[in-house]
Amino acid sequence: MTTPKTLREDSPTDSHPISIWNYQDSTPADTDAINFTTGFPDFSPPKHVSSAFKSLVNNENNNSLIHQYTKQTGHPRLANIVAKLYGTELKRDLNPERNVLVTAGAVHGLFCCIFSLVRPGDEVIIFQPAFKGFSYIVNSCGGVPVYVKLNIVEDDKCKNDTPVTTSDANQKLNDRDLHTTRFEFDEEELKSKFSAKTKLIIVNTPHNPLAKVFTTDELSKISQLCTKHDVLCISDEVYERMVQEPLKHVSIASLPGMWERTLKICSAGKLLSVTGWKLGWCIGPDDLIRKAVTMHIASVHRIATPLQEAVAIALEGEYTGREDPNSYFNSLPREISTKVDQVCEIFLKLGLKPLKPEGSYYVVVNVSNFDFPVKDSSQTKDFQFANWLLNEMKIAVLPVTMFYDIEDRNEINESLVRICCFKRYETIDRARRIIEDWSDTK
Amino acid sequence: MTTPKTLREDSPTDSHPISIWNYQDSTPADTDAINFTTGFPDFSPPKHVSSAFKSLVNNENNNSLIHQYTKQTGHPRLANIVAKLYGTELKRDLNPERNVLVTAGAVHGLFCCIFSLVRPGDEVIIFQPAFKGFSYIVNSCGGVPVYVKLNIVEDDKCKNDTPVTTSDANQKLNDRDLHTTRFEFDEEELKSKFSAKTKLIIVNTPHNPLAKVFTTDELSKISQLCTKHDVLCISDEVYERMVQEPLKHVSIASLPGMWERTLKICSAGKLLSVTGWKLGWCIGPDDLIRKAVTMHIASVHRIATPLQEAVAIALEGEYTGREDPNSYFNSLPREISTKVDQVCEIFLKLGLKPLKPEGSYYVVVNVSNFDFPVKDSSQTKDFQFANWLLNEMKIAVLPVTMFYDIEDRNEINESLVRICCFKRYETIDRARRIIEDWSDTK
Repeated sequence: MTTPKTLREDSPTDSHPISIWNYQDSTPADTDAINFTTGFPDFSPPKHVSSAFKSLVNNENNNSLIHQYTKQTGHPRLANIVAKLYGTELKRDLNPERNVLVTAGAVHGLFCCIFSLVRPGDEVIIFQPAFKGFSYIVNSCGGVPVYVKLNIVEDDKCKNDTPVTTSDANQKLNDRDLHTTRFEFDEEELKSKFSAKTKLIIVNTPHNPLAKVFTTDELSKISQLCTKHDVLCISDEVYERMVQEPLKHVSIASLPGMWERTLKICSAGKLLSVTGWKLGWCIGPDDLIRKAVTMHIASVHRIATPLQEAVAIALEGEYTGREDPNSYFNSLPREISTKVDQVCEIFLKLGLKPLKPEGSYYVVVNVSNFDFPVKDSSQTKDFQFANWLLNEMKIAVLPVTMFYDIEDRNEINESLVRICCFKRYETIDRARRIIEDWSDTK
Repeated sequence: MTTPKTLREDSPTDSHPISIWNYQDSTPADTDAINFTTGFPDFSPPKHVSSAFKSLVNNENNNSLIHQYTKQTGHPRLANIVAKLYGTELKRDLNPERNVLVTAGAVHGLFCCIFSLVRPGDEVIIFQPAFKGFSYIVNSCGGVPVYVKLNIVEDDKCKNDTPVTTSDANQKLNDRDLHTTRFEFDEEELKSKFSAKTKLIIVNTPHNPLAKVFTTDELSKISQLCTKHDVLCISDEVYERMVQEPLKHVSIASLPGMWERTLKICSAGKLLSVTGWKLGWCIGPDDLIRKAVTMHIASVHRIATPLQEAVAIALEGEYTGREDPNSYFNSLPREISTKVDQVCEIFLKLGLKPLKPEGSYYVVVNVSNFDFPVKDSSQTKDFQFANWLLNEMKIAVLPVTMFYDIEDRNEINESLVRICCFKRYETIDRARRIIEDWSDTK
């Protein structure tokens, strides 16, 4: 048995800016804890993706070059189907060579875009909490992250302390207005962050870690500020196919005046549940894509051909089956919803109040009113809880303060943890049994 | 039939610094020309590499996580075997987590190393001609490339104009001293390029495009200057397993005082003839690897898991069979040599004098004395020849002036072309027939 690691807020001996990610970087072999931290499924790829991969081996497409170099900006078969799929979505003719740039995953897409656009001293607006990669990349090229808070907004119904039941939560998901807890930005605060130095704003919908889906109204407010201040937009939409009905995913690039100034970041790993393939693409106007290409060439030159071919085959299937309710894209939100319900039930049993995701596969839990023995009172509440859960039950979840810039800590909500629900049913069952056993002996 | 493209030296309408690479970026589908330009085999991977890939599909290793995220700095199975293989070679205990960084190909390794070490204004010494990626990456991070020429040195035997016959060439390859044409740097010139501003030197052995293998003596001279001036070294050794006997590949990191200051760049694509996998690694001391990791995280976070697993399996086989003359690594130079002989024979038939590679799979041909109709006299001789060959015979080769910094053109050897010989026998045969037919009708 491996001893569970202790989650650390920061390690003074390690100057690495993202040392707090250490736990996320552990592989299942490193620990026997149930890993609800990092955003990846712990199961095999969906059947049509496996078949696509298999077809490379069996050489069904009779192409001996599938394991050799392909075009720098993207394997033609992949760029073509990406242009077709997203052209339909954005109601715009996309040119596979000029509006699509295939990347070594979404982070690489973010890197190519940010490094090609941001010069030292340029400001980049980021909604916080945020995927730490945003500020890390912005800082790496000398840019200055400027944060806008996403605040918890709770409606009256939520102000009593009874936990949200899953059936309650289900009902609430059916009507956004009944959703008891939302995360919202303050429009005045956002306005105040735009200045002559602002080069970019990064929008992330569905949002990691808060599982928020930005509404058309919210995106319009952002758009108006972008056009007014001539600010570009990077729109990280890696969870675009994981939105719960009746909510809809809206690409900010589809709003008036935004296509010309937006680079949309996509992830094949998230779309097709093969996070280990590290494949993605940017979609945008010719001039911005050309800029991103300069950093693409400096950093990698080309992307893995076999994985591009396999993803192309899988996406071709998704395109053909786009009206079929049982296609992978159409059934994915239902699959996630089932797992989310099961995970919520477990944490309800602990007496906690999990928030169902509007989009993505992350459940956020507020632990502010939860009582447990605290070992290290200098830590924030979320870290105390995550460490307690890991040590007491060998269940690993992520403290949301990890998604904040450390220097801005007085403005942080310190009592949220993020749980990735996209794990196999056996994994979720194991967690349920552990928590039931713990409750019984308590 | 697609009309062959015309190779251009530069396009004024395209501000992209590497527009001259356009032809190299064409896929076989784009043209019906025989493509001897880019350095990739036009055939399927070797059997043991295909089997390794296949084992992922059949789930032989029973690991459902092989398509999901793995450790950021490298998939443990791959990092372990890389440490073992190169530890044996460098006679040094390598730590898979601290001395190995897995990258999205060799270019990505170069990028991580150069971007993490070079600050604006820092000078980087590069032997020229050179892989254009070096100066592109150095320029991208504000560094200043400083060039040292590799000069053609011909011995007496070569000064008459008779072409080298392949049997001659074979004999010469058996003894370096008899090799009629070499490329050498001038030691005084190299010394003069080291200054207080010099941060790095990039060494590339075996060399692209000149197919030169640096001798221990040459590497020692470079090493002494590095230690004297406290300069770091990036050693691009992607062709390390393609050295022709009796020559030996020497890693500069194995010379006195160099381990501490060298980052060695390797490529799984070149090692295992799967250039499309875009997988590689850097090997070096803890402190330099940690610096490279900062740019690795900014640019990609992680590398494709299934490809890492497959390469690990293939390398484990190479490690076990390292004494077997028929292992892939041990037989690769012979396979290349056979193809080189065939390609040389073809160009001898044209009346040209091909130079056999000391290492890599590139044959360099000097076209200075070759007579052909010139369409555009403003072009350098190598471009005139490459364009003539492409239009007249639909055979594409690369002008070596493409491997020079354009501003430095008065110091360039303008009459060399590079031919990649690592193509299937049918491809080489097709070229032979075309040239024979052309010779017959002349």
